[in-house]
Amino acid sequence: MTVSNVVNGNLGRVSPATAATVERIVQERGYVPSGPAQSLATRRTRLVGLLLPARDGGISLLGSPHDVSVAGALEAGLRERDHHLMLRAVQDAREVQDSVQRWNLDGVVVMGFTDDELRALDLPEDVPTVVIDASADGRAGAVRTDDVGGGRLAGDHLRALGHRRVVFCGPTDSRSPVVAGRLAGLRDVLGADPVTVVARTSYEDGLAAGERIAREHPSATAVFATADLLAAGIQAGLIRAGRRVPQDVSVLGFDDADLARYVSPSLSTIRQDTAGKGRAAAELLLRLIHGDNPRDRVVRLGVELVVRESTGPASVD
Amino acid sequence: MTVSNVVNGNLGRVSPATAATVERIVQERGYVPSGPAQSLATRRTRLVGLLLPARDGGISLLGSPHDVSVAGALEAGLRERDHHLMLRAVQDAREVQDSVQRWNLDGVVVMGFTDDELRALDLPEDVPTVVIDASADGRAGAVRTDDVGGGRLAGDHLRALGHRRVVFCGPTDSRSPVVAGRLAGLRDVLGADPVTVVARTSYEDGLAAGERIAREHPSATAVFATADLLAAGIQAGLIRAGRRVPQDVSVLGFDDADLARYVSPSLSTIRQDTAGKGRAAAELLLRLIHGDNPRDRVVRLGVELVVRESTGPASVD
Repeated sequence: MTVSNVVNGNLGRVSPATAATVERIVQERGYVPSGPAQSLATRRTRLVGLLLPARDGGISLLGSPHDVSVAGALEAGLRERDHHLMLRAVQDAREVQDSVQRWNLDGVVVMGFTDDELRALDLPEDVPTVVIDASADGRAGAVRTDDVGGGRLAGDHLRALGHRRVVFCGPTDSRSPVVAGRLAGLRDVLGADPVTVVARTSYEDGLAAGERIAREHPSATAVFATADLLAAGIQAGLIRAGRRVPQDVSVLGFDDADLARYVSPSLSTIRQDTAGKGRAAAELLLRLIHGDNPRDRVVRLGVELVVRESTGPASVD
Repeated sequence: MTVSNVVNGNLGRVSPATAATVERIVQERGYVPSGPAQSLATRRTRLVGLLLPARDGGISLLGSPHDVSVAGALEAGLRERDHHLMLRAVQDAREVQDSVQRWNLDGVVVMGFTDDELRALDLPEDVPTVVIDASADGRAGAVRTDDVGGGRLAGDHLRALGHRRVVFCGPTDSRSPVVAGRLAGLRDVLGADPVTVVARTSYEDGLAAGERIAREHPSATAVFATADLLAAGIQAGLIRAGRRVPQDVSVLGFDDADLARYVSPSLSTIRQDTAGKGRAAAELLLRLIHGDNPRDRVVRLGVELVVRESTGPASVD
């Protein structure tokens, strides 16, 4: 009762000396009656962690336009509901535990990891979690794009333009369900496995892949890339190798990132709702945090075809 | 002593009933002896806030390649020293106080605000603060680019190519010291006030500005823009208006953002070290947090000219 009286300010019942002693101990030891400390006890810090892979020494954090757009919308969606975002690049499970425990995060959003990597991260079971672009297991929520549908849209568009020899380019070695979904959709439409060219999602990797495609797959009339950033590089690489886009080779991207409009020719692409992903992740996570226990823990966002200058009719041999 | 004994686990000196009572009160009230709570009392949460303007409903957060690059390097710089980043868009002083107090932030980095806006934000005096691209007042540290030097480099490059009628384009109405510095440097070299065209830092504003420059300033042979994103739009707007870049009009950007390499023609630009800004902000802030009291609280990073395809000799009338 003494402690309770002191910290509640009911000093009438406590001797001044005792009050001073308790107060000193409480302050020295860090038992401050502040909002954060109370939040800690009730598990309401209103702080949400966005965990991203720290691949290239951390500089790759928010390296893709996709990730930047999702993170911005996530921050806005949380802020509207008085929650806030900690941005954290992690390399291993130890860092995840550290993040979650040290700040008593109310929830976690995880982006940019494959399913295998997520399993290795060993996300804590008692903290509400939303994964973006990966599979939800039993407890976590997931926000994904309809990647198979996107692959089909890409296939339909290219087929309608007469393309039969299509190269699929992306991080196909990454075991990413996103990449696998887009490839599966494309295969559905083409009725056969397309040639695949492995490339990481960067402009520079795209440049190299474009030159390689021109050299090693000279009969290909179209390339479908898993990201606009990559497609922009592929297009530049093809042009550098002497191919015209789209007269010789069509290039189709994914995302509808801003840069799809900046490059020449402007990129045709499969648009996904990156801002919607961030907002949906905020909404789903807050429902999980508040124990709403939504029946549907997987949000899947639609895609649409955006036709610009980089795709055209297949060249006649 | 009772409280102290209980929370230190010295239960031998305390009766079991008293120990249980103290423990219950401490837990109920949120006085948990966890790392975070101890951090709160000693002002070491190891959490640093990056405050950015919430201009367009928060979606503009990290809207520019510059901000993304700085934020990524800041996160990495803090993480290397076991500190972490809270990303927070703010609209007014109330939100700043809320961020700082509720999480007991160890420090704050502020980016994207003009000097006037910073004064209005009323940053708390007792929390170490580093401002990026604005003036440091007495207590805050500042990380800036040599904007005047950048403006001079731009002027030197354009003069050497024979340009005399140069348009300066950027948010010249924003009272930003960054914009003012670049304009001052350009003016130094040209020996006169250049024509200025007001535009916000976006590709779309650049497009409109490019078309406007073609129409209203037909004799201009060069445009110096305050950001690559803007320069990319200006260039596209000029081309849309029938001008050739660089044969009719040279376009020079600022930043050396990735997109400078993606657009056609690729952008000549004044390179600033955006990643270095983030790293320098992390370093300076941690020195302030640890009471190092560095004598020089302003870090000013250098610039360099990067010549690509968008600048060339002035056209002869």
